Amino acid sequence: MWPKRFYISASPLLLPVPPLVTLTTDFGLKDAYVAAMKGAMLHVEPSLRIVDVTHQVDPQDVMGAAFVLLQVIPFYPEGTVHLVVVDPDVGSARLPIAGRFEGHLFVGPDNGLLSLLLRGSEPDQVVVLDQRSFWRTDRPARTFNARDLFGPVAAHLASGRALDEVGTPTDTFRRLHWAHPLADDEGIQGFVVHIDRFGNCVTNISREVIEKDPRSRHAKCYVGSTIIEGVHDTYTDVPQGEPLALLGSSNHLEVGVNGGNAATLLTIHKGSPVSLVYGDG
Amino acid sequence: MWPKRFYISASPLLLPVPPLVTLTTDFGLKDAYVAAMKGAMLHVEPSLRIVDVTHQVDPQDVMGAAFVLLQVIPFYPEGTVHLVVVDPDVGSARLPIAGRFEGHLFVGPDNGLLSLLLRGSEPDQVVVLDQRSFWRTDRPARTFNARDLFGPVAAHLASGRALDEVGTPTDTFRRLHWAHPLADDEGIQGFVVHIDRFGNCVTNISREVIEKDPRSRHAKCYVGSTIIEGVHDTYTDVPQGEPLALLGSSNHLEVGVNGGNAATLLTIHKGSPVSLVYGDG
Amino acid sequence: MWPKRFYISASPLLLPVPPLVTLTTDFGLKDAYVAAMKGAMLHVEPSLRIVDVTHQVDPQDVMGAAFVLLQVIPFYPEGTVHLVVVDPDVGSARLPIAGRFEGHLFVGPDNGLLSLLLRGSEPDQVVVLDQRSFWRTDRPARTFNARDLFGPVAAHLASGRALDEVGTPTDTFRRLHWAHPLADDEGIQGFVVHIDRFGNCVTNISREVIEKDPRSRHAKCYVGSTIIEGVHDTYTDVPQGEPLALLGSSNHLEVGVNGGNAATLLTIHKGSPVSLVYGDG
Repeated sequence: MWPKRFYISASPLLLPVPPLVTLTTDFGLKDAYVAAMKGAMLHVEPSLRIVDVTHQVDPQDVMGAAFVLLQVIPFYPEGTVHLVVVDPDVGSARLPIAGRFEGHLFVGPDNGLLSLLLRGSEPDQVVVLDQRSFWRTDRPARTFNARDLFGPVAAHLASGRALDEVGTPTDTFRRLHWAHPLADDEGIQGFVVHIDRFGNCVTNISREVIEKDPRSRHAKCYVGSTIIEGVHDTYTDVPQGEPLALLGSSNHLEVGVNGGNAATLLTIHKGSPVSLVYGDG
Repeated sequence: MWPKRFYISASPLLLPVPPLVTLTTDFGLKDAYVAAMKGAMLHVEPSLRIVDVTHQVDPQDVMGAAFVLLQVIPFYPEGTVHLVVVDPDVGSARLPIAGRFEGHLFVGPDNGLLSLLLRGSEPDQVVVLDQRSFWRTDRPARTFNARDLFGPVAAHLASGRALDEVGTPTDTFRRLHWAHPLADDEGIQGFVVHIDRFGNCVTNISREVIEKDPRSRHAKCYVGSTIIEGVHDTYTDVPQGEPLALLGSSNHLEVGVNGGNAATLLTIHKGSPVSLVYGDG
Repeated sequence: MWPKRFYISASPLLLPVPPLVTLTTDFGLKDAYVAAMKGAMLHVEPSLRIVDVTHQVDPQDVMGAAFVLLQVIPFYPEGTVHLVVVDPDVGSARLPIAGRFEGHLFVGPDNGLLSLLLRGSEPDQVVVLDQRSFWRTDRPARTFNARDLFGPVAAHLASGRALDEVGTPTDTFRRLHWAHPLADDEGIQGFVVHIDRFGNCVTNISREVIEKDPRSRHAKCYVGSTIIEGVHDTYTDVPQGEPLALLGSSNHLEVGVNGGNAATLLTIHKGSPVSLVYGDG
């Protein structure tokens, strides 16, 4: 069993840390899907603590779900279960899987998402979820595995079941790869992978790539309808209303406008190219 | 009092199952309404567990709220309190009620919603909520009974109060009826009652009605701008981009597009007619 | 330390009241921001109860956030921590602060929001959050103080730390002022400060101002494209589809339409003027 942790409450009691599951789906918030899944999870473990990461992933956008969850995982305690259901192939032969990596647990369909979370490293363990006694029913609805299979299994894992109790170890799972930016002696070429609520445009150019060449801090950034000078640290480094490139909280290059919406003002879309070009000096 | 349940935590403690309330409203997520109501509920019962079903019911759409909640109730434990506030007549003489059916509790205005949840059967008990000592104040805001009356009463019921403590038994409550599909020897005629986030169009034609006549599995389905052959079990039964009719997770006939948005692609709206027509064979 | 409270659960146990934090931000629900912040908070205090007020504040609308939170605070128990992150100046020299007023705690950037919650009164205590041992890291991301500084400090305060443990007392904090309505012998002149999900238009004219002059109950209300007679108590005081002015649950004058959307039907916007004009009689 996953080692149980305790905390000292303000009373003299030593209370168990509530088991923790995060949810990332494309289910939206107006239908019954999220609440039905939560009901099935609470049936398994009444003390379960459930945190919604987002249910607003673009329908069937596996990479978008992975991008959001990668910004979240480092801030959760070890042992947290991350349930991610973006499942374009629900009801087909794609397998349900779970895995452990860096002390965290993943549960979801085998759609490549786990490999995107791993970013090139290997998981500690991956299992195919074939132990039907941990499902809500051994005849899950073919279009709603989240409620009947993934949710209950995530709740069992959070409350202490081991991976090899709920499934059978496997070595094969679907692999997807993040597109890496191109870096050469002239500069760095990447693209926009996420536009946030404020219109900030997050790219696939990581802090690591930026910091490899000191010239990148003073490069020209070509993006959308504009050219920006230099890479900054925060929006207020430029005057109100001005565009800027910065290394944001996601540790990737972002394009923003101080006090404004960069996506709208600079005509930038998900997938738009972003180039950092080193100067002559 | 409602029988209390306990669970064994990973520590040697036997802990009480937290009292559970689900919320279904048309309040949206940008105003203060939901959080004010939750505060009033937590005042009554600090250990309350609150699950949001949805706050995105179309304004004042009683049937829409009932449709979503019906897909949720079966997955919650007995004793769960379902608080539903869609209240076009707030502040008028319509009564506040609560009721028990199939082991679940309902709290909300007497607007017909309870009868829609019952689908023709009778409740075990219905009360008019007239015991003001369980309200937040005996002068509730006339436009916000959810905060001042329904929320606190739901919290009291979840934490163990009996229906006849918080109200006075009644036999009369408002009755609404689901429109049933028409089935005859030629086929089945229904309509679209809900369009989900993915554009799947859920109809009022239940699995039961479909399974009564084996020909329905091979019927032609006339809907929106298209005609579809047969009734399937999951989206991937047809090629990517193709429309299909299927028996979805709600146990009703749905019209979908594998990997696409059926409502948009096939010009289907809430209320659109859907016909299954049996063939000659 | 903040005095700890206990409640008697249905079991013979006396359980601690879970520490309570409300969240009000402009982060939206599709990005990683809210979940990353919650993870950092749960790291500090695993038993924390977090209630979302809203994450849909218009980007960088400090007054909008204050307006929503003011409708929420009175319904929460004393000792609740209200974390509000609407932070147009994130990464600049603006200070992180916390304060106590009327038994509640506020945490957020020094952007004037605290003074809007105070509505003219003075706080019991205000501190600058300069004790880095209570932050997630002593090098917080310059564009995401919510995750690295405000969230963890709010969790520490909720779980019993004193204000002067997490910060240094200060007398100076940024002051903003609500625009008050103008009232004279002819009538009252205000404007629309919030439009809710139903299209109800809430003004800055308080119940107190209305009740000062009994003629206001029978005044003519000029707003948007219409003139309405009298001030009512609930929507159903007028026939279906008719506009009305009423004293709503927020204790401010609202303009609504019974069963309809006043903002759309009467062409009213945030900021639209609203005049109550006393008659001759």
